[in-house]
Amino acid sequence: MPTNKEYIQMIEQALRSYLPSQKGLEADVCKAMEYSLMGGGKRIRPILTLEFCRLCGGNLLAALPFACAVEMVHTYSLIHDDLPCMDNDDMRRGRPSNHKVYGEDIALLAGDALLSLAFETMLSPRNAGLAGEDRAARAAGLLAKASGATGMVGGQVIDLQQEGKPTTIEVLQQMDEKKTGALIIAAAEMGCVIAGAEENKLAAARTYTRAIGLAFQIVDDILDVTADSKQLGKPVGSDETNQKNTYVSLLGLERSRGLVKELTEQAIKVLEQFPEDTSFLSDLARSLATRQY
Amino acid sequence: MPTNKEYIQMIEQALRSYLPSQKGLEADVCKAMEYSLMGGGKRIRPILTLEFCRLCGGNLLAALPFACAVEMVHTYSLIHDDLPCMDNDDMRRGRPSNHKVYGEDIALLAGDALLSLAFETMLSPRNAGLAGEDRAARAAGLLAKASGATGMVGGQVIDLQQEGKPTTIEVLQQMDEKKTGALIIAAAEMGCVIAGAEENKLAAARTYTRAIGLAFQIVDDILDVTADSKQLGKPVGSDETNQKNTYVSLLGLERSRGLVKELTEQAIKVLEQFPEDTSFLSDLARSLATRQY
Repeated sequence: MPTNKEYIQMIEQALRSYLPSQKGLEADVCKAMEYSLMGGGKRIRPILTLEFCRLCGGNLLAALPFACAVEMVHTYSLIHDDLPCMDNDDMRRGRPSNHKVYGEDIALLAGDALLSLAFETMLSPRNAGLAGEDRAARAAGLLAKASGATGMVGGQVIDLQQEGKPTTIEVLQQMDEKKTGALIIAAAEMGCVIAGAEENKLAAARTYTRAIGLAFQIVDDILDVTADSKQLGKPVGSDETNQKNTYVSLLGLERSRGLVKELTEQAIKVLEQFPEDTSFLSDLARSLATRQY
Repeated sequence: MPTNKEYIQMIEQALRSYLPSQKGLEADVCKAMEYSLMGGGKRIRPILTLEFCRLCGGNLLAALPFACAVEMVHTYSLIHDDLPCMDNDDMRRGRPSNHKVYGEDIALLAGDALLSLAFETMLSPRNAGLAGEDRAARAAGLLAKASGATGMVGGQVIDLQQEGKPTTIEVLQQMDEKKTGALIIAAAEMGCVIAGAEENKLAAARTYTRAIGLAFQIVDDILDVTADSKQLGKPVGSDETNQKNTYVSLLGLERSRGLVKELTEQAIKVLEQFPEDTSFLSDLARSLATRQY
């Protein structure tokens, strides 16, 4: 079983290999794509693809293009999210955001090109052949659905519309399930699909990722109230300042903490569906729940 | 053999059926997607997919999702092109552009969602199954490559960089081959792939579409100098006003016209590779070359 660090090495090496060459007249957009794609991050989504593939007895090398594709989709969404017409964020992961470095036009196009590159990577004759074209088509179809209007983009739209307005816990949860949940769920599902797993394992993968995805979001909201701003790397209390609807503002701190505990237990419990060693994923669920930043 | 009008009806009915429902909290983005996708246009790209599929003896119903996908990609590119950080166009096809109606944030996301929807449409279990998963994966992979950094997006980047600068005919041609050529070529290739055509037919489809794509662009430049502005639906002479590099400014009117004639003849000639009735495509090549608007 690879360690987290080994997974990240594998993923970053592959991501680099899939990026387009910077030799043509379109070099600027290729540089902008590299800037954000190789700019760090926890690589949780591609790790989920690989680890679920491994748990289902699949070939990690066949899953690698699909793991990288979900990271490309995630990265494109961050570039577009940071644009002035969206969240207008100047910084991302401690560096200037893409449009601050390359300009809005190139940043927009770099995001667009990363979304296309995700599908190009999964569906190249070589990579689709390695996974099997039927599995490749099914996995890529799951990622397409998860990233679109009824998935991630839909969640971003709900987020835009709720801004500054009172909301309910149901709406907040639906927003998170789409905005961040859909992609995390698809990451895990793709790993199972590439391994040719049975339906019960796909269902378990969905339950696990839905639970940790939601728990992750609630922990974010808790940390915004309780964390040390130096440790968190951003000012605490920003949600309240921005009148953002959060789990903490809607449920209070205690119930939010209880919900994280419940979701984490649910995630760990469902891993029993896999006869293999699931300690990587149970550790991941615990570490996301107890993180301090 | 369906007529142009019958093809358009088939395509528009299918496009509508693939759009997401407008019932969820994310309804705004779904409306914005519909606004641009169902807002008219000549539907040349999807027609090329269907007609090349028919010429190669394929099943039109199996090709329809792929035809629609290329139109979704084309539409997303227009929405993003019109954004203030790109061409900042307030009008498109005689109507306010997407962001003028829905706002920049929703327009950006509607474009993003249309690109995802293209792949979701091609790779849904039903549609990929109808085409055969191996053909579906290959066709979708071609569209992914054609739409990305080394294809359409790359062409947009070259366009941004050449603006207002002196250029050469080689650069102009490379820009067009990527910006508009790549998608038109992929449209035709996908039709052949879904029909399971041999390599020589794919090569002929590429030659045909490269030629008519380039001819189309040169005719655009010629019309900007010679057309009646009422008939053209936009002011003539705008390329000169905007100091745009065009075939006419680089080659002159006569050589530009000669090139259109040459390319159109080349396109029609290569259709001999198909034993079937190719009058639809030879008529199309001729009508694009002789159009007055």
